Amino acid sequence: MNVKLITYTPDPEKTVACAAKLCYAASDIDTLYDGLTPEKVSAFLDHLNAMGHESPIEHASFTFGIEGVSRSLLAQITRHRIASFSVQSQRYVREDSFEYVLPPEIEAIPAAKAEFIAAMEEDARHYERLAELLKENHVKELMDAGEDEKSARRKAEKMSIEDARFVLPNACTTKMIVTMNARSLMNFFSLRCCNRAQWEIRELATRMLRLVREVAPHLFQNAGPGCVRGACPEGGMSCGKAAEIRAQFQNL
Amino acid sequence: MNVKLITYTPDPEKTVACAAKLCYAASDIDTLYDGLTPEKVSAFLDHLNAMGHESPIEHASFTFGIEGVSRSLLAQITRHRIASFSVQSQRYVREDSFEYVLPPEIEAIPAAKAEFIAAMEEDARHYERLAELLKENHVKELMDAGEDEKSARRKAEKMSIEDARFVLPNACTTKMIVTMNARSLMNFFSLRCCNRAQWEIRELATRMLRLVREVAPHLFQNAGPGCVRGACPEGGMSCGKAAEIRAQFQNL
Amino acid sequence: MNVKLITYTPDPEKTVACAAKLCYAASDIDTLYDGLTPEKVSAFLDHLNAMGHESPIEHASFTFGIEGVSRSLLAQITRHRIASFSVQSQRYVREDSFEYVLPPEIEAIPAAKAEFIAAMEEDARHYERLAELLKENHVKELMDAGEDEKSARRKAEKMSIEDARFVLPNACTTKMIVTMNARSLMNFFSLRCCNRAQWEIRELATRMLRLVREVAPHLFQNAGPGCVRGACPEGGMSCGKAAEIRAQFQNL
Amino acid sequence: MNVKLITYTPDPEKTVACAAKLCYAASDIDTLYDGLTPEKVSAFLDHLNAMGHESPIEHASFTFGIEGVSRSLLAQITRHRIASFSVQSQRYVREDSFEYVLPPEIEAIPAAKAEFIAAMEEDARHYERLAELLKENHVKELMDAGEDEKSARRKAEKMSIEDARFVLPNACTTKMIVTMNARSLMNFFSLRCCNRAQWEIRELATRMLRLVREVAPHLFQNAGPGCVRGACPEGGMSCGKAAEIRAQFQNL
Repeated sequence: MNVKLITYTPDPEKTVACAAKLCYAASDIDTLYDGLTPEKVSAFLDHLNAMGHESPIEHASFTFGIEGVSRSLLAQITRHRIASFSVQSQRYVREDSFEYVLPPEIEAIPAAKAEFIAAMEEDARHYERLAELLKENHVKELMDAGEDEKSARRKAEKMSIEDARFVLPNACTTKMIVTMNARSLMNFFSLRCCNRAQWEIRELATRMLRLVREVAPHLFQNAGPGCVRGACPEGGMSCGKAAEIRAQFQNL
Repeated sequence: MNVKLITYTPDPEKTVACAAKLCYAASDIDTLYDGLTPEKVSAFLDHLNAMGHESPIEHASFTFGIEGVSRSLLAQITRHRIASFSVQSQRYVREDSFEYVLPPEIEAIPAAKAEFIAAMEEDARHYERLAELLKENHVKELMDAGEDEKSARRKAEKMSIEDARFVLPNACTTKMIVTMNARSLMNFFSLRCCNRAQWEIRELATRMLRLVREVAPHLFQNAGPGCVRGACPEGGMSCGKAAEIRAQFQNL
Repeated sequence: MNVKLITYTPDPEKTVACAAKLCYAASDIDTLYDGLTPEKVSAFLDHLNAMGHESPIEHASFTFGIEGVSRSLLAQITRHRIASFSVQSQRYVREDSFEYVLPPEIEAIPAAKAEFIAAMEEDARHYERLAELLKENHVKELMDAGEDEKSARRKAEKMSIEDARFVLPNACTTKMIVTMNARSLMNFFSLRCCNRAQWEIRELATRMLRLVREVAPHLFQNAGPGCVRGACPEGGMSCGKAAEIRAQFQNL
Repeated sequence: MNVKLITYTPDPEKTVACAAKLCYAASDIDTLYDGLTPEKVSAFLDHLNAMGHESPIEHASFTFGIEGVSRSLLAQITRHRIASFSVQSQRYVREDSFEYVLPPEIEAIPAAKAEFIAAMEEDARHYERLAELLKENHVKELMDAGEDEKSARRKAEKMSIEDARFVLPNACTTKMIVTMNARSLMNFFSLRCCNRAQWEIRELATRMLRLVREVAPHLFQNAGPGCVRGACPEGGMSCGKAAEIRAQFQNL
């Protein structure tokens, strides 16, 4: 898994503080940034936090580059709708170098690891053979329809992977660029940093939190699973390790 | 693929006409429905259409039950963010009866079909074996931690499928309930009924359009790919069959 | 204030239970509704609630007709973005019968009430005079540009109210149709039924809650300000009346 | 009207080009920015435009500070739901220096201007008197309930403006911070730069477009009303000046 913070709203905490200042104080657009010392910025962020006023943090956005994560993870992260996604398409980009995510629990059991790798290798072979069979069929159809061979081969290439990818496994890796604002990120961290979240997206969310906390420590100081901010919200389903988890996220 | 219109806003066209009537005419909440004959409803819908005023159609929502579609399709449909999804989780529900989507183009080529089915059967075996290996490992861990065997076996069941599903293919079927309002559906149909859309989601979108047109024919009369309403919006990427496609969607 | 529940997803609780059933159990689209007795529906809704799993309740939508509320309220309710609004336009519909909201606290103080009513009457006169002055000016311009008088008068009518409405007060009433799904409504009720919310939107939210609870009592049984479900989330800003408020919303 | 571009995603065009590159080409997160010369960036943006592929432009966000606009404008701009707003509250910030927007058409007619200014001055007086009456009443109530005078006066201040603002006019100015991503902005410009849009929001939208075009000229080169990109989408309601408008937005 490779996760990078590609770009973000410059001075994210000051931007949020400006918005808070405008809401609650008689201030002017031209002098909004004036006098916003780090201490004042912190005071505004604390005030928002105390008020439970979440909307001003939406003004700060963060863009991540993510690769080496599974298609299973993709299915989970794209369920977050207040976010922007650009995903490398299996429909357009051929899986020449078939890469996959090996779950740590499977890796730790030799028999399971062997079974898993065998499955991946077979999938790669099936994908290649299907792509070839589909391609030859498309080339033939296109040439029968009067296309010259060179052009037919080029078109057929793309047509063939559209269906061949049906045999690719959930473990297959993907790449994406994801942008979320701070409010949506806070919600994402609450759900996905939780000890009950699936391991891969929990790892991704934890890395993303580490990255944004480096550039906006005050904004994300309370970010993490619900237990970081109070009682575990999972009720009867709680993992029962709130103290341990809380410590982990305070010292990420 | 099995697609059902499970429920929808009662009297969807009248509801939308009410909203249009309120925006443009001096009218009262208590008498909004009064005098809304089918002719008046049609007139209001035509007026909205002529004005390009899309927001009133948001008041009508449609809920679909969908099954027998691939995980590839799931990845595409969940990219539509103005929608609500409930999806059968591979994380919680074990794939006892491993079902998959066989793409028609693959089915039509005997060698490809054989290759595909072999891939599916291998995946099913790998999934079962991995689930067993992981389960036995989890049972052992839980019992070592003092859990009794019965309870350990129950917990281990769920833990084992979380990672075993990494070998399941894109072809694997899923089930979901999807709700979209009419405006979001219009956009969905524009993009996914298009001849350039991937075949499976195009089939789903076309079936969904057929279902909503039965209950709201006037509201969805211009629904379908962009070429139904004018020039093809795909420009240089156009499929070049606008006339044919247009006829197909007018007589769906 | 006049609030009506105009329409809603039929059988809202059963629809939500179907979605929950599909997520967690091996079930089929064709038999989803089978066996969903009222007891089973309640059990599924309780399970969602215990899990904190909010997304399935999005499948149920509710559409309200609202009139006799102020433009101040409009500015507040339209800040809820997961909602659909159709609002009677001050730009298109002339305020012939100038109606306004008289805040109860002002009504209770005779001097304030007199001051307020005087303000409203002056505004009505200014609006009428401005509309006339603007209209005559537009008629003249249009006729100078060659338009015949009748057509000029018709066009000028609409042009004149666009700017005349700048003198209309916040108290001026408006009408709207609003659709929200149950999840968005739950959030709306949390924020706007709160004792710290502004009185007019609190009254509206409370009436809306009463209306939806009549048709979906189980779905909205925990709806209301945060204190209904646990500790007051307002922290240091708490109104300090949680017990009283809780009782009010349990017996709405 | 004072409009400032307060902050925005650094290198917005390059960020969007990265997202496009990832979708369509075999590329790595670590080398995404490599080789993205201005020419390559332009090529990717042109490709997105030709494909009608709008989602990658969502990764670039723009934050504006806006003041000196009317409450009427606020009601319009907040209808754009894919946006983040922080607005100076009339509920918390007292309108000491009552400022208002004087519509140019009214300013141009001496009698209308006099009528308008008289209305504003009366409103200011009514607001002040109501605030005082309400404040004295609240002070009395609070002191009767045992509060000391100083504390009572402080609390009463805020309580009094909540209802006094009901007499404030639509013309009353407000301040806000607004963040939209490039895709939402493109839609905003299409609707609000249109010659048929209301004059005040058209002026705001045009200024916002000028500001973003300075920092992302390629990204917003086709931004503006629909007629800039082709035939007028307003059909029978068209202003009939497409050529003129088109020229205006090309040379903004």
